[in-house]
Amino acid sequence: AELTHFDATGQAHMVDVGSKAETHRVAIATGTIRMKPETLALIQSGTAKKGDVLGIARIAAIMATKRTSELIPLCHPLALTRVVVEFSVDAPNSSISCTAQVETFGKTGVEIEALAAVQVGLLTVYDMCKAVDRGMVIDGVRVLEKHGGRSGDWVA
Amino acid sequence: AELTHFDATGQAHMVDVGSKAETHRVAIATGTIRMKPETLALIQSGTAKKGDVLGIARIAAIMATKRTSELIPLCHPLALTRVVVEFSVDAPNSSISCTAQVETFGKTGVEIEALAAVQVGLLTVYDMCKAVDRGMVIDGVRVLEKHGGRSGDWVA
Amino acid sequence: AELTHFDATGQAHMVDVGSKAETHRVAIATGTIRMKPETLALIQSGTAKKGDVLGIARIAAIMATKRTSELIPLCHPLALTRVVVEFSVDAPNSSISCTAQVETFGKTGVEIEALAAVQVGLLTVYDMCKAVDRGMVIDGVRVLEKHGGRSGDWVA
Amino acid sequence: AELTHFDATGQAHMVDVGSKAETHRVAIATGTIRMKPETLALIQSGTAKKGDVLGIARIAAIMATKRTSELIPLCHPLALTRVVVEFSVDAPNSSISCTAQVETFGKTGVEIEALAAVQVGLLTVYDMCKAVDRGMVIDGVRVLEKHGGRSGDWVA
Amino acid sequence: AELTHFDATGQAHMVDVGSKAETHRVAIATGTIRMKPETLALIQSGTAKKGDVLGIARIAAIMATKRTSELIPLCHPLALTRVVVEFSVDAPNSSISCTAQVETFGKTGVEIEALAAVQVGLLTVYDMCKAVDRGMVIDGVRVLEKHGGRSGDWVA
Amino acid sequence: AELTHFDATGQAHMVDVGSKAETHRVAIATGTIRMKPETLALIQSGTAKKGDVLGIARIAAIMATKRTSELIPLCHPLALTRVVVEFSVDAPNSSISCTAQVETFGKTGVEIEALAAVQVGLLTVYDMCKAVDRGMVIDGVRVLEKHGGRSGDWVA
Repeated sequence: AELTHFDATGQAHMVDVGSKAETHRVAIATGTIRMKPETLALIQSGTAKKGDVLGIARIAAIMATKRTSELIPLCHPLALTRVVVEFSVDAPNSSISCTAQVETFGKTGVEIEALAAVQVGLLTVYDMCKAVDRGMVIDGVRVLEKHGGRSGDWVA
Repeated sequence: AELTHFDATGQAHMVDVGSKAETHRVAIATGTIRMKPETLALIQSGTAKKGDVLGIARIAAIMATKRTSELIPLCHPLALTRVVVEFSVDAPNSSISCTAQVETFGKTGVEIEALAAVQVGLLTVYDMCKAVDRGMVIDGVRVLEKHGGRSGDWVA
Repeated sequence: AELTHFDATGQAHMVDVGSKAETHRVAIATGTIRMKPETLALIQSGTAKKGDVLGIARIAAIMATKRTSELIPLCHPLALTRVVVEFSVDAPNSSISCTAQVETFGKTGVEIEALAAVQVGLLTVYDMCKAVDRGMVIDGVRVLEKHGGRSGDWVA
Repeated sequence: AELTHFDATGQAHMVDVGSKAETHRVAIATGTIRMKPETLALIQSGTAKKGDVLGIARIAAIMATKRTSELIPLCHPLALTRVVVEFSVDAPNSSISCTAQVETFGKTGVEIEALAAVQVGLLTVYDMCKAVDRGMVIDGVRVLEKHGGRSGDWVA
Repeated sequence: AELTHFDATGQAHMVDVGSKAETHRVAIATGTIRMKPETLALIQSGTAKKGDVLGIARIAAIMATKRTSELIPLCHPLALTRVVVEFSVDAPNSSISCTAQVETFGKTGVEIEALAAVQVGLLTVYDMCKAVDRGMVIDGVRVLEKHGGRSGDWVA
Repeated sequence: AELTHFDATGQAHMVDVGSKAETHRVAIATGTIRMKPETLALIQSGTAKKGDVLGIARIAAIMATKRTSELIPLCHPLALTRVVVEFSVDAPNSSISCTAQVETFGKTGVEIEALAAVQVGLLTVYDMCKAVDRGMVIDGVRVLEKHGGRSGDWVA
């Protein structure tokens, strides 16, 4: 095994994907933000009537998928065909999960775009609630599934 | 307690910081990526001689601090005066930690910039190693300390 | 009278604001999008319970103020201190108005940022409703007020 | 009728265009900026010999089409194949119109890109002339025609 | 002598400028593009009546100064107060020179912004003429002068 | 011969490439930065053990290819499939060369992206070494080869 982002002399490059097939590619990523119960209560009350933290975080997450290749040095630019972002509240654990599904028809996968969506979605939650809870922690950011491309299906 | 990013009617806004003092502000954030021991070994061998994953991730993390206000909807744009990003390898736990310290002289804090640096730094590690280890997990992304501004010092 | 964005030989430049005072500057801009009554009804039902078009348009408008100097060639970059965006529904005229107030402490005004917020806010409404009403029209985009700086107050 | 940018539960998403055909798509949009006659005269004299307001606004309009998906939250990124922007002076009405034609071969249309070009083109005119005429108004920004894709031709 | 962009252990960082004074800073950079005489003739005819290559290159150069810190990893973001870009034709040598003057009031200098303006201005000339002259060469891109800041005046 | 970026009336446009074939396109560009021998020595010592100027410049160069169409007004956006950037030290001439190879499968070429990579790579070297050598000069930035597309192969 070796890291494909380096050539034989150890120099970084943007890997050649020119000969790869344009296929339907899907990636699903997830992650969680833990907070105080009273912070969670504030977010939940807002979602129901006003002050929609999760609605704003969803927009930020979707928009982040379109900027991913600007942020990650060796990531290929891709024209995404679908982005879905969901948040779910876990009251017993006083946390919120974010799950992002990203799709394209292209020569390379979209795991990084899905992970970026989750990261930016959860960071937006942090930003909007930090005045009341600076100790929130983002955990478990990872890929759940990917489909399409030469390596085929992968499930965590 | 209420969320300052919403006005009395529940509409989101970019909070007025016009009357806040321009002070020296510092934020330190951290986070970890867990991986297989053989992935960690690949990264470590690269750092020592070629294929410098962590050097590239550090650059990505630093650059991300300059784009944070573009990604996070209600985050104020700020002229940063210092960014330091460090990675440390924890071989027993087969993980790598990233810590970012961001500073400015301005009207609002830089916690979000520090967290964004950590997120993008760790996501760059994921990107560069994903071909050998798709199951890596990013954990414990949080603020460690902040200093300056009306709310003064805060330590996790 | 002459156009300050050109020098004596007619060449465009980014005007020298170095000797201008850093003062509190405010600009308020507005604009309207006209649509079919049934489109307006769809937006209103969404705002009340789900499918919040105007909440998303507000976020897009706020974020646009942070990118304005990238879009408008001779516009100075500025660190904004406050952005407020409001939408109001005018059912009799089957239209929605967007008003944006932008503030900074700086050497130049923020009218262009306020107008950009209105334009992007209304364009986001168009984007989200275009599948049901391609004939929507954006009208009356203009500055309502500006305050601060050498030219002082101005009201339309 | 319903708004396609929301799913059944009212959550916003970037619509799945993966199964749509890659076809030749064209959109034409237009809009107008009204100003004082003396402002129009200044612009016209510049176009003829120096201080080319409309030449600069055209470049800004063209460049805006390449950033549209960054500004409009649920807009798909697209590789544009052609952008043409024209300005025409209407002296009797003391106004200038901007018309933009945008084309692509892709899975979704380019109306939003054409509208963004018009908006940014007219806002650049405003920016360059605001020192002499702060009361200019942007009106009638709308799509004139679109061609290609499942919904076929549409003319205003 | 040592490179300030690295700390004692050789890790890159964005240098701490927090304690530096906010002073008036100026940088002037220049560079040249050499081409075939017939290419130069085409550009010159355009400048006089239509097809204004240099007018467009000037706009691109000015806009590039606002994006410099996004492109150069360890460059601090700065709010520029003035940008002037000039082109001059050297017919005997069949070349065009670009000179950019950039100014700010800030904690660090603007040499990199001035050089970026020159590079992007000349690259825009290349882009617009490449169909008739692919062999053009950009030469002599360098700083001519800088003023302000702790190191004071410097002239090449 | 005429400049294709202007229409018959001299107005700039983004050229229609809709009818061009999607082919494999390659461009190779190069350029050089000249410096004092002691600056070169500092860079070389860093590359060997710490303070890796050229590794950072390589990342900046690769990332610049993804932003090129944002910087160059009439340049088409393209999904790149490969980017390789190399630096070579010429000790006798006290200079460093940068060579970039960029590839895509698309409707237009990638010479501008390759030149942008070289420019940003060399400017990053300047930025990192400017504290010890402000007089460095960037020379000889040009296209070496291009392949693919209607005009076929071209070698300088």
